Formats: sequence, structure tokens, C-alpha cells
Amino acid sequence: MRTSIATVCLSGALVQKMYAAAEAGFSAIEIFEPDLISAPQSPEEIRALADRLGLSLDLYQPFRDAEGVDEETFATVLHRAEAKFALMRRLGIETMLVCSNVATATIDDDEVSARQLRRLGDLAATYGVKLAYEALAWGRFVDDYRRSWRIVELADHAAVGICLDSFHILSRGHGPKQIEEIPAEKIFFLQLADAPALRMDVLSWSRHHRLFPGEGSFDLPAFLGHVLRAGYDGPLSLEVFNDTFRQTDPVRTARQAQRSLRWLADRTADLLGEETGRSAPLPRLPEVAAPEAFDFVEIKAPDTSGVEVLLEQMGFAFGGRHRSKQVRLWTWGEARIVCNDVPSASPEPHIAAVGFDVADSDAAAERAARLMAPPVHRRTYAGEQALRAFASPDGTEVFLSRAADWIAEFDGGVSSADEHSARIDHVNLVQPWHSFDEAVLFYTSVLSLAPQPAQEVAGPSGLVRSQVMSSPAGGVRLPLNLLPNGQQGRAQHVAIVCDDIVGVVTAARGRGLRPLEVPGNYYADLAARFDLPDDLIDTLRDLDLLYDRDADGEYLHCYTETVGEVFFELVERRERYAGYGAGNAPVRLVSQAG
Amino acid sequence: MRTSIATVCLSGALVQKMYAAAEAGFSAIEIFEPDLISAPQSPEEIRALADRLGLSLDLYQPFRDAEGVDEETFATVLHRAEAKFALMRRLGIETMLVCSNVATATIDDDEVSARQLRRLGDLAATYGVKLAYEALAWGRFVDDYRRSWRIVELADHAAVGICLDSFHILSRGHGPKQIEEIPAEKIFFLQLADAPALRMDVLSWSRHHRLFPGEGSFDLPAFLGHVLRAGYDGPLSLEVFNDTFRQTDPVRTARQAQRSLRWLADRTADLLGEETGRSAPLPRLPEVAAPEAFDFVEIKAPDTSGVEVLLEQMGFAFGGRHRSKQVRLWTWGEARIVCNDVPSASPEPHIAAVGFDVADSDAAAERAARLMAPPVHRRTYAGEQALRAFASPDGTEVFLSRAADWIAEFDGGVSSADEHSARIDHVNLVQPWHSFDEAVLFYTSVLSLAPQPAQEVAGPSGLVRSQVMSSPAGGVRLPLNLLPNGQQGRAQHVAIVCDDIVGVVTAARGRGLRPLEVPGNYYADLAARFDLPDDLIDTLRDLDLLYDRDADGEYLHCYTETVGEVFFELVERRERYAGYGAGNAPVRLVSQAG
Repeated sequence: MRTSIATVCLSGALVQKMYAAAEAGFSAIEIFEPDLISAPQSPEEIRALADRLGLSLDLYQPFRDAEGVDEETFATVLHRAEAKFALMRRLGIETMLVCSNVATATIDDDEVSARQLRRLGDLAATYGVKLAYEALAWGRFVDDYRRSWRIVELADHAAVGICLDSFHILSRGHGPKQIEEIPAEKIFFLQLADAPALRMDVLSWSRHHRLFPGEGSFDLPAFLGHVLRAGYDGPLSLEVFNDTFRQTDPVRTARQAQRSLRWLADRTADLLGEETGRSAPLPRLPEVAAPEAFDFVEIKAPDTSGVEVLLEQMGFAFGGRHRSKQVRLWTWGEARIVCNDVPSASPEPHIAAVGFDVADSDAAAERAARLMAPPVHRRTYAGEQALRAFASPDGTEVFLSRAADWIAEFDGGVSSADEHSARIDHVNLVQPWHSFDEAVLFYTSVLSLAPQPAQEVAGPSGLVRSQVMSSPAGGVRLPLNLLPNGQQGRAQHVAIVCDDIVGVVTAARGRGLRPLEVPGNYYADLAARFDLPDDLIDTLRDLDLLYDRDADGEYLHCYTETVGEVFFELVERRERYAGYGAGNAPVRLVSQAG
Repeated sequence: MRTSIATVCLSGALVQKMYAAAEAGFSAIEIFEPDLISAPQSPEEIRALADRLGLSLDLYQPFRDAEGVDEETFATVLHRAEAKFALMRRLGIETMLVCSNVATATIDDDEVSARQLRRLGDLAATYGVKLAYEALAWGRFVDDYRRSWRIVELADHAAVGICLDSFHILSRGHGPKQIEEIPAEKIFFLQLADAPALRMDVLSWSRHHRLFPGEGSFDLPAFLGHVLRAGYDGPLSLEVFNDTFRQTDPVRTARQAQRSLRWLADRTADLLGEETGRSAPLPRLPEVAAPEAFDFVEIKAPDTSGVEVLLEQMGFAFGGRHRSKQVRLWTWGEARIVCNDVPSASPEPHIAAVGFDVADSDAAAERAARLMAPPVHRRTYAGEQALRAFASPDGTEVFLSRAADWIAEFDGGVSSADEHSARIDHVNLVQPWHSFDEAVLFYTSVLSLAPQPAQEVAGPSGLVRSQVMSSPAGGVRLPLNLLPNGQQGRAQHVAIVCDDIVGVVTAARGRGLRPLEVPGNYYADLAARFDLPDDLIDTLRDLDLLYDRDADGEYLHCYTETVGEVFFELVERRERYAGYGAGNAPVRLVSQAG
């Protein structure tokens, strides 16, 4: 099947949008009318450019307020439509999107709408144009695809078919199963969009908050499954617009869009796999299981010694020096932190890379490459392991690696004297606002992590949105944080889980660690909220430990000071507590701002 | 009456919030519990600081999930409450806000809730504490103030009263009139918040989009009128939080909050004016009618000659040089533009000031000062008019002036030879995201302009939100534009209205004006949309004029190139067209970006 994208998804002028779509490997585009009207190029120039770029012009959209009107109004519709049909002939576009009437409909009668679409179809046919009729979720009378299909059936005209848009159907909660009853040859076009679960009016939801498939909460694999079962084999086209895509680099957005379609096609093929004789809508990607452990975290700066002091105080042991690079390894149980002293874009210590322990790094790397993850090249020397790495949307490098393959490159380490075994519990990455949704799709599609429900926590200078990406068994947890509008701070952190935080922190304090101070008022509130023994509260207060409890268990944690752009968290999880102490975040944020 | 503000309205740590509230002239605050818990200061320190700042601590909030629960849960409620009552005694706070139960209520029975509030009241009384019970708009069972009042009546306890919050009442569309039936002594507290008209779930609306009175769409003067008629004379307290206030300077937000209460008190006093014997809730401000004309626009830069070229090409005549400053006046009919060549913060020509023609500048200046508008001082010389000026939230200076008072300071001007009389139609000011709502309140309260419904237009790099502030007869129109997230561009413009744009632009082109180019595709679309004579379309195309039409009339307009941060628009309004050609904005934005 062809992949296609609506020009309204991309920022910039029409010509820039076309270059971006071609660059990302799309074979077709939908032309959004205002993009053409604003373009200085003639329709013939646009057509010729599309030819050269190998882009098919698959749809002209939208044509509004066409049917359900009185005869006098319909005469103006025909006048308007004929000018557009002539324009489409110049552009070489065959199909026009006709939306259900929002503004001028006065007649709520399927027969009238069908008759008017038939007359429009007659006119369209003389220009070689076909009409794809779409029920908008906020159409005046027609707002359900089952009704638009009934009208198309009644119109009974070769030039009149239906357009299906996942947003308009799923946002209204309309079941997509009946799509299978529509004959394939009458499904003239398919538009795909995801969206977050929001409770707001559907028009604003549509205009501001659509997302690419895999970034939101719609079940698009199931939706596309129904469309494919109907026999549709036209383009898979994305019509997604939101406040972010309108203002980000169109080349980057187009790649993100293409990644989304590849992921969606695969998930849909999984679903349809049982049905014999049906081929996948797009070539399959290599299957890769989600990683169940962090392999390492790399911290980079011209000077990372401040971080090494913290590591040693917490309980890490020096794990050796790399045999050919200015890189030192620190280990504590299964937790590995690599400190890399090199000139770098940011002069402050920061999380530069996260290694994920994947079972088959060749397959995982091929999958990432097919999903257009930008490869990262690091110099290797003879005899060293060439690690597979890709840049995530925020620039953090993602390695597909296993310690067993590279740890021998480090010499001179000692093993940790600390008896409390530890591992990396979660790595918190702060995302710039324009790549937050892209990051969700990246980790979903490339690493097969699953997004957990998003949370918001109030800090002293704004709300922080947090979305955790995690592996099925919880071995990998990656909270992605979105800072408030306009804030650039990038403090990220690595959380180390241990089995006796009281012992660990007591020993760490002995080595000089000073956890972030927690105000006395916090412990007074803790005593009011939970029925905790006084001596536990005293211990928590003495060690500046924070506490949370839910139905599944308990969470004890504390934070180190921040060095450059990095700090650490020490955590102990009791029973099956699966959260992150979100309720304590305001206390941490105020204390860090303090 | 006292003015009060909830600490949750302001950004920063608790102590910063307290300083900001005091600085803006508030006499009281509500302590939001998480602010206290995060504060390193002891309750005694907070109490002593409040004393020194002259702030009364009027409310401790919120206490959640108190009633409608089973006996076992209620035992934990009493445990939690007693710790908070003890804390309130240390803080010296008498009143606690008790919200209707959201999370743990299982018993939907007024008698049970009342009995539990009565028992909580018994315990509170032993600590000298009173409970103000509030129906949250999303309460599990109690979500209407009429029901919370019934429960308070049933509780029949001296320490149990009601808290009224305008958001929780008006967001649900509950009529506020029955407030008048509640005895004044049982209204323990009043919280005021405005909000924009949005259709979304009320919890998100409340958490992200509350506004100060006068910035949104609630009828708060009517609401407060009902509360005052009930006899309430406690504090007027603001509980407003939104994504913007959480991250802007708390001193600035607190002043904005105080301005909002002054405006609200005045509007409410107007409403109650007929009722004899009732005094205004806060001292009255001087009444000032909205200006019905622009007096002048000032453009400032080290070198404004590029702007002067445009002015002369459009049809302005040189109106003289200021007798003591590097300032030149340009006039065209009633339109006056002042070019001021001085070193300035921005090196590019920009709109530095807007003069409004007010009937009584003394009264207007006093009103602005009472509303905490920051005064602007400009050097004047003997014999020159000392103009009254204030800084608006985006930094543009607002002058309260009349040309007759200052025009004699300019010498050597000529009068315009152009027979087409002109005046300033509108001045478009781009607002930084964090001061957009503040600007709406500023122009509403200080200049008595009225906000018109907001619009959004799509540009090539994002959506632009536009909100017009206008005078009753339309003589002053001030569109405030909000750029997309993260964009800093500040191109503002001045629109000049004339009565024959075809003649004006033809003559201007003869003088070398090159209006912004409009693509040919635009005119093809115009012909499809409107039934316009071919020769009109030809004229529009030849002159690069844009066109719009609505039920009230027609709008013809064009744009000059941008010089620094300023461009001009020439407009002709036919019949009663009152818009701004918003549909043409995408074409302008693409052309300007191109």
C-alpha cells in the first residue's frame, strides 16, 4: 500500500512540506487547500515538482458545506465546486475530500444529501474527478460514518464514495466494525490520526491535539484491521495536526510520521496474522522483545569528577578505565554508570546515553534503522565491540548492548565492597516540549516499551507532565518529563534501587553523602496522613528519606544534590509498589529550587 | 472588606509568595497546604513573617475527603484532621477549607455527611477552628452549593459553615441567586475565580485554565452581588491557578490579582448602586469612559528612517519636528505617527507607545494608578505638556493624551496633500505568552475597553490566537495576538483606514510603495468563493489587495513590507464590516515568512 501524508501535518510553505514528505519516504500527499492558496507557485509548478519528487497527489481537501442545503445555496456550491474541479485537473488530482456540512445545512434528510452528492458527482465526472464524502465528528446532521455511508449508497454514483478518518470515528466512540460491510471499491480514501484521551469538545480536540498513530490512546491497529478486512488497498494517509507539528521542522515531522505508519502497519499485521492469504499492509519489521534491564547510563562532560564523588558516596565501586578512551566505569551490583570525559556540546555533566540490554542487538538495530531512527557513530578500535546506537528525539543516545560484550574493555577495576546489591530502577529524561510525543512513539516503536498513563506534578515554577515508558515486566522504566512552557532546565536523573535503603543511606552519609534536605513540615504531614510508627518517622527524618504508600506497597527514596544537569535517586521498593513517589515531587522541586 | 489571595495562585516558594502578596497590597492570604509542607520554615516562622508583612492568615486549605464515609474511614479522617487543627493553632489560622468528598465517599446521604461534619466541628471547636465546607464541581456526591448548604444547615454546628467558590458554582452553570438565602454568618469564606468559556472536563478546566476576575467569561459582578446581598462581609479572596501563573513572577501576578479585585468590586458596586444603604465592597475608582479614538502611535529606534519612507509612500505628510527631542511627527487626516530616534532596548523600529484620546486625562491617570498600572516617566521641558503614561503588560507604553494638548510642540510641518482622509483603524500588539491574559485585564480595567470573542488563525509556523479589545463605538480596536509556543517574533502593525483604498494604493504605488505580494492562487479561490465582478478581481490582483465579506459589509486591505518589527496595513471598510479579514491571515503569514 502507498504511504501518504496531508500537507496540513507539516509546518512551512507548501514546497517545503513536499520536500519533507519526499525525504521521509512518503509516496503520496494530500493537498490542504489553504496551503495551495498561500503558495506563490502555479498549480502546474506544484504538479511538476510533485512529479520530480516522486510524490503522487492523492487528494485535494477539504471541500466544505456541500450538501443538505436548499436549491439556491446548492447553486453556489456547484459554482464553487466547478472552479475547484478545474483546478484539480491542472494539479492532476483525481480525488476530492467532501466533508459533511457544518455551516449551511438546513435539510436533515439522507435523500436530499444523496441527490445533491449525485449532482455534484455528475459535474465531477466531467472533469475526471471523484468525491470522497466524509462525516465530520461535528457535522451539523451527518456526524457518523454509518450515516455518510448510507448517503453514499443512496447517491449510487460511480464518482461518489466514502472517506474514512479514524479521528472522526474513534473520537465519537463509534464502533469501527461496520466498516467491514462497505465494499472496498467505495472506500475512496483513508485518513489516520491518533489522539490522547481528553474530555473536551471534539472540534478543539481535533484542531489542537491530534497525534500520529502510536502516540495517543486510540486503538488504531484494530481500526485499520477493519478497513483492511473491507478490502481497502488505497493509500494509508496521515491527517494529523496539532499545535506542536505546526511549528517544528517539517523534515523531522515527516520522518516521525513515516515511523508511525510502519509501526501501525506491523501491529495491524499481527492482528490479522491469523487470517490466511492476507498480506501485511507494509513490509514487516524485525520483531524485537522489549529490553528488561538497563545495561548502563553514560554521563558526559569535560570533567565528570563531581559525579564520581556522588557515585562513590552512594556505594558504587570503580569498575576500571577503558583501554583506549577517557572513560571510567562505576558499578554497584547490576548498576553500571560510565563517566566519559570529553569536550561536549553541553559543558556540564549530563546523561548522554542509555544502554538497553536487548537479547538480539542485530535485529533490534535493523528494526531501529527501518524505523528511521538516526544512527550514531562512535569510533571503535580493533578488537572492541562496535555498539549499535541511535539518537532518540531529545538527542540522548540509545545503545542496544549487553555488558558481557564490552565490559572486558575496562581494566583495573575493583568490585564493590557494599553488600547491598543494586540496579538501575529508572532513568528520568527531561524532554523539550516539541519532541515529547515523538519520544513516546520512538520508545514505543523502536524499543517496544509501553506508555503508562501520564501524570502531572506541581513544581514551584509550573506543572511538570510525566509519562513513563516501561517494559512488560517493569525491568526498564523510563519516565519522560515535560517541563512547563518556556523552561529550559534539563536536570535529569538516574534512580538506583537497593534492598535496604536505610542501611545504604546510613553508610552513604558516613562517606559524606548529603541527601537533598526535606522540610520538617513534610514529616508532620506524613504522620497525619499515614499511620506510621514514630520510630520509622524519626528514621525517615534523620536520613531525609521521603515515603509513599499505595495499595500495592511502599516506596522509600531520597535524592542527591545536582551536579551539572544530573542527580541521582536512591530507592527501595517494598512489596509491589510500582510508582515513583509522585506526591513527593513538589517537595523535591521546591527543595531543588531553594 | 479585606482582599485576600490563595498562595496556590503565585509561583515560587511560600515565603516568596507571601512577600509578593504583601507587596501588591493584599491584607490576607489562604495557605495552600502543599506550599507549607514544602517550606523549610516552621509554622511559627510563617506566622511571625505574616505578622511582620501585615498579612492575616485567613484560611488553611484544602482538607479533602472528610465526609460521606464509613465509620472506619471516618476514624482516619479524625486522626488526620486533629493533626491539622494542631498545626493551624501553631499558624494562628482560624478557618479550614473542607472540600466535598471526591475519592472515598461511599454514602450518598445528607444526614450522614452532616453528622460527620458535626463531629469534625466538635473536634475543631476544641482547637478554636472553624470549618468552611465547599462543594467541589466534581465532588463524588456533593457538587452543588445548594446541597453543601443543606448539609451545613443539617449539621447545625457553630464551627461548621459554607465556603462559596465562584468557579465551582459558575462552571457547572448553577444559578447563584439562592446564595442570598444563606445567612451571612454561615458564609465562612468566599473564593473568586474567573475562567474562559471552554468545553472540557471541569477538573482540567479548573486546574489549568482559571483566570482572575475580568479575564474570563464568568459574570462575576453578578455573582459577587448575590454574595453581598446575603450580607457576607468577610474577605474577597482569589483562588486562581493556571499554567501561566504557576511560572511567572509572583510579584507581578499578585499586582494583577489586586487589579482584578478592584475592578470587580467597582463593577459589583455599579450593579448594587440602586440599593440604598449598601456601601461599595472596596473604595470606588474614578469612572472613566473608554477612549473612542487613537491619539498617536510612537515608533522608536536608533534610526526610524525606513518607517518614514513607508509613511510618506502611503500618504502621510511630515507634521513637524519636536522642538526639544529627536522626534518627528507624520500625519494623515486624523492618523498621527510619531518617529522617535533614540537608543532603545530593541535596535529595530518597533511600536513603543500608543496614545489614547481620553476625555479626562487626570481622572484616567488616577484610575490607572489606583489599578497599579506602572507609571512611565518621560523627561519634559518647561512649557511642554506632561503626558500621563503607563506601561502595559507587554511593555508598550500607554499614553492618556489629546493631540490638541501637544501638537503645538512640533514645528515645520506641512499638511497632507492627499484628499483621502484617514485615521488609525487598529493597532495590533503581539503579546508574550505569559502576559496575554494580564493584558486583557489591563485594557479592560484601566481603559474600559471590552474583550471581543477570541479567534485563532493558522500561520506557516503555528496557530496565532487573536483577541480584540475595543471601545463601545469601535473607534478604538486593539487586537492582541499571541504567538505559538516558543516563538519570539514581534512584528506588530498599525492599520490605517481610508475611504478609497483603490485610489490610495494606486497613488501609493506611484510613490514607490510595494504592498506584500499576494499569490495568484488566492484570486482564483476568491472567484470560486464569492460572486465578484471580473473587473473587481482584476483590480484586486493588480494592486495586491486582499478581500473579505460578511453579512455586514466588505473589507479591502493590503500590507506593507516589515521594517524592523513594524509593518502597516491599509484598509477600507464598506458598510458595517467589523472584522479584520482573519481568513486572509494565512496568506499574509506565508508571504511574510517567504
